[in-house]
Amino acid sequence: MKIALDALGADRGIEVVVAGARIVAAEGIAIDLYGPQDRVRAALGSDVPANIGVVHAPDEITNHDDPGTAARAKRDSSIVVAAKAVAHEAADALVSAGPTGAVLAASLFNLKRIKGVRRPAIAVILPDGRGGRSLLLDAGANVEVPAEMLVQFAHLGAQFSARVLGNPRPRVGLLTIGEEDGKGTERIVEAGRLLADPENTHGFNYLGNVEGRDITNGAADVIVTDGFTGNVALKAIEGAATATMLALVDVIKSSPRAKLGGLLAKPKLLELRERVDPNTTGGALLLGLRRVSVVAHGSSSPAGIAAAVRLARDSVRGDVTGHMASAIAELNEHAASTSDVTVGVADDA
Amino acid sequence: MKIALDALGADRGIEVVVAGARIVAAEGIAIDLYGPQDRVRAALGSDVPANIGVVHAPDEITNHDDPGTAARAKRDSSIVVAAKAVAHEAADALVSAGPTGAVLAASLFNLKRIKGVRRPAIAVILPDGRGGRSLLLDAGANVEVPAEMLVQFAHLGAQFSARVLGNPRPRVGLLTIGEEDGKGTERIVEAGRLLADPENTHGFNYLGNVEGRDITNGAADVIVTDGFTGNVALKAIEGAATATMLALVDVIKSSPRAKLGGLLAKPKLLELRERVDPNTTGGALLLGLRRVSVVAHGSSSPAGIAAAVRLARDSVRGDVTGHMASAIAELNEHAASTSDVTVGVADDA
Repeated sequence: MKIALDALGADRGIEVVVAGARIVAAEGIAIDLYGPQDRVRAALGSDVPANIGVVHAPDEITNHDDPGTAARAKRDSSIVVAAKAVAHEAADALVSAGPTGAVLAASLFNLKRIKGVRRPAIAVILPDGRGGRSLLLDAGANVEVPAEMLVQFAHLGAQFSARVLGNPRPRVGLLTIGEEDGKGTERIVEAGRLLADPENTHGFNYLGNVEGRDITNGAADVIVTDGFTGNVALKAIEGAATATMLALVDVIKSSPRAKLGGLLAKPKLLELRERVDPNTTGGALLLGLRRVSVVAHGSSSPAGIAAAVRLARDSVRGDVTGHMASAIAELNEHAASTSDVTVGVADDA
Repeated sequence: MKIALDALGADRGIEVVVAGARIVAAEGIAIDLYGPQDRVRAALGSDVPANIGVVHAPDEITNHDDPGTAARAKRDSSIVVAAKAVAHEAADALVSAGPTGAVLAASLFNLKRIKGVRRPAIAVILPDGRGGRSLLLDAGANVEVPAEMLVQFAHLGAQFSARVLGNPRPRVGLLTIGEEDGKGTERIVEAGRLLADPENTHGFNYLGNVEGRDITNGAADVIVTDGFTGNVALKAIEGAATATMLALVDVIKSSPRAKLGGLLAKPKLLELRERVDPNTTGGALLLGLRRVSVVAHGSSSPAGIAAAVRLARDSVRGDVTGHMASAIAELNEHAASTSDVTVGVADDA
């Protein structure tokens, strides 16, 4: 097992990525770092572990590039060279803290979609504040999503939850604005109708509709939505957690007694951000591709890079992509047989 | 000035509503309580302030009723009788802690839309954790919303922000998934195009696109979105605030030292929930109607009911509905003149 790790893309520079690589290398994970050779080697310094390699990729894709264009044109960029290495099986998984859109585009072009998957989705792992974790997808890859794609997302998310997050029969909910059937946009209602067919939910426990608050209350293991709603919800959650933390600091500073209390509790309060900050769970998964691809947060610390690499390692170990391929093949077979029946009914009418 | 207050609908019973009425009556706000006479009078007890009246309405609309059907059929329900009183100017504003859908339907049928308003929106006031407040609309009245309606929502929200929340030139943002133009669904992009025309943004400062995290970080005074996205975001924010509070309790309990700190800080920590809980800001505003209508949270405390009544009072005082009517009339005039131009161009083509 070897992880192709993009040395560029982290807001805090190559040093952070290299420090993350050292953490996981010490745990026995082999890493190839992709980036400008001289700079990567300089960041690595001496005493390089035997299981860290360097692969030269002189160019960089930044936030200023158009993701799709750059992922095609910048063939010598660290993201593209690393993605090609994974495609050619020189490595087992791609991890990058670069721009999500660029990693998605490079992964889509080089790692390719699983047969029958219409579009890959971005999945994020969110903490529920009590030590639990849920998976939200799509968190922004696809703005407008037909019902059939939402059903595919349910399967992609369920396989990841089962194989990597340890939920053998994940509880999957459809994100909308009320518990009753028929609540939500036309596409959501149609997706709910499709998911009500047990033939479309092999391998997971379909909960029906869930609401915004269920994303972080442990009610579901997987929350399915389109990329527009998912991205807004994800950022709303990040914002609310930040606002609550700011208010906490403010409140603790507001009296001498509370200040003293805050000082006493400080070592534990520092854990709080880690418990609620979505940025600590290791990054975003690109699901629906033939090979594993993980986007670490741009603002990652070395621990964040290490968490992203571990997620990639666990995904490879759990053969997530293989299980997704089987689930989607089975789903599409059923869809094909059902649409025959539908045509039959229409003929009778 | 008199507020028509629905005595039913609060989860914790008539007593809570009556206690809320007593708070605002003591501040000089005249209240008529609508509900089953005997039960309301029993809850009121003796020593009833002169500015609290009771209007008999024997029937109740509950969460089990279909909102639209019940708002038409249950003519003796407290919500409908109170709404009719406001329509006939026996009171200046409606406040109810009943089901949002039923209050919306009863308000729409009886208070009527402002001329030119396509659909009313549900607006909620959200705390940013630092003492600031923003207005999010639509929070659930309209699932799918054409671009022109989003522009109307911008004006409805801006007028409320200016006249009630003290922002003379409110900063208005369009909720989507990236700061650049062209990010989001087709409808959002079209709304952004319309709002880029300064003729469509009289009375407010249009910020362009905002993202989920901007709802609670003070970046905007008004955040405009469709009812599906707004409802998901609102509940996601409520859920994230709750998860953070639960994690805080957990973390404080996790060591004797942190526990002691928590005890010292406790009086202030209790303020925290109030600072971040959207439920403490007084409820949801139904904007776009000819008369003022406020939905208090079903779970309201007496203080929550009182906050909702004060919002209604401030809305009446600020003549929010009058200012909205002017803003919408002006907007629609411009739209009519622009669409003439568009027709001209089409004819030339």
